[in-house]
Amino acid sequence: MSDLIPLHQARCLPLKGKEHRLTPARIAELLRQVNGWQLVENDHAISKTFHFADYHRTLAFVNALAYIAHREDHHPDLGVHYDRVVVRYSTHDAGGLSENDFICAAKADQLTE
Amino acid sequence: MSDLIPLHQARCLPLKGKEHRLTPARIAELLRQVNGWQLVENDHAISKTFHFADYHRTLAFVNALAYIAHREDHHPDLGVHYDRVVVRYSTHDAGGLSENDFICAAKADQLTE
Repeated sequence: MSDLIPLHQARCLPLKGKEHRLTPARIAELLRQVNGWQLVENDHAISKTFHFADYHRTLAFVNALAYIAHREDHHPDLGVHYDRVVVRYSTHDAGGLSENDFICAAKADQLTE
Repeated sequence: MSDLIPLHQARCLPLKGKEHRLTPARIAELLRQVNGWQLVENDHAISKTFHFADYHRTLAFVNALAYIAHREDHHPDLGVHYDRVVVRYSTHDAGGLSENDFICAAKADQLTE
């Protein structure tokens, strides 16, 4: 992926294979391009909690994220509660974090910024 | 709640206060009226995992559950994954399980049966 394109405008690609797993240096670089995401699960995933004023807004966000997931064919794990959504991205086929996780994280940020 | 009404046809009521927390005997009775729900978190909640063929069906179920949550003003915690949803009901204001949790569990079962 070219860093000339803003992360939220990049598109996910099929990244099957361990060779797509990001190095720690690249992870650190991409983390700086998203807003408030944390490394979790021994650096195999990234996670962020989004807060909302009510359940309607919470579900609207879930559906917007699902639209992105369909379009990019890259699916988050979600913890959906009354007023917040815990979003987690990881790339199973790469055995950890790939560029796709940060592309989708940036698109999730865009929804709320 | 009268047991003459099938659980999935009952409506949730505002149950604020510890007096609405169910006894172990009543929990056992209501568990027999729902399908495959488990007691979790030291009997403070019930949980069931629903499986789906694809992400579209998974999200359709999430939205149907959200409709029930709006209508009953009783909201689950959800773990939303590609092909499954982990549903958890508990009644915070009762400090554990109330009739409302089993009413919503029965309505969730009805969606998929």
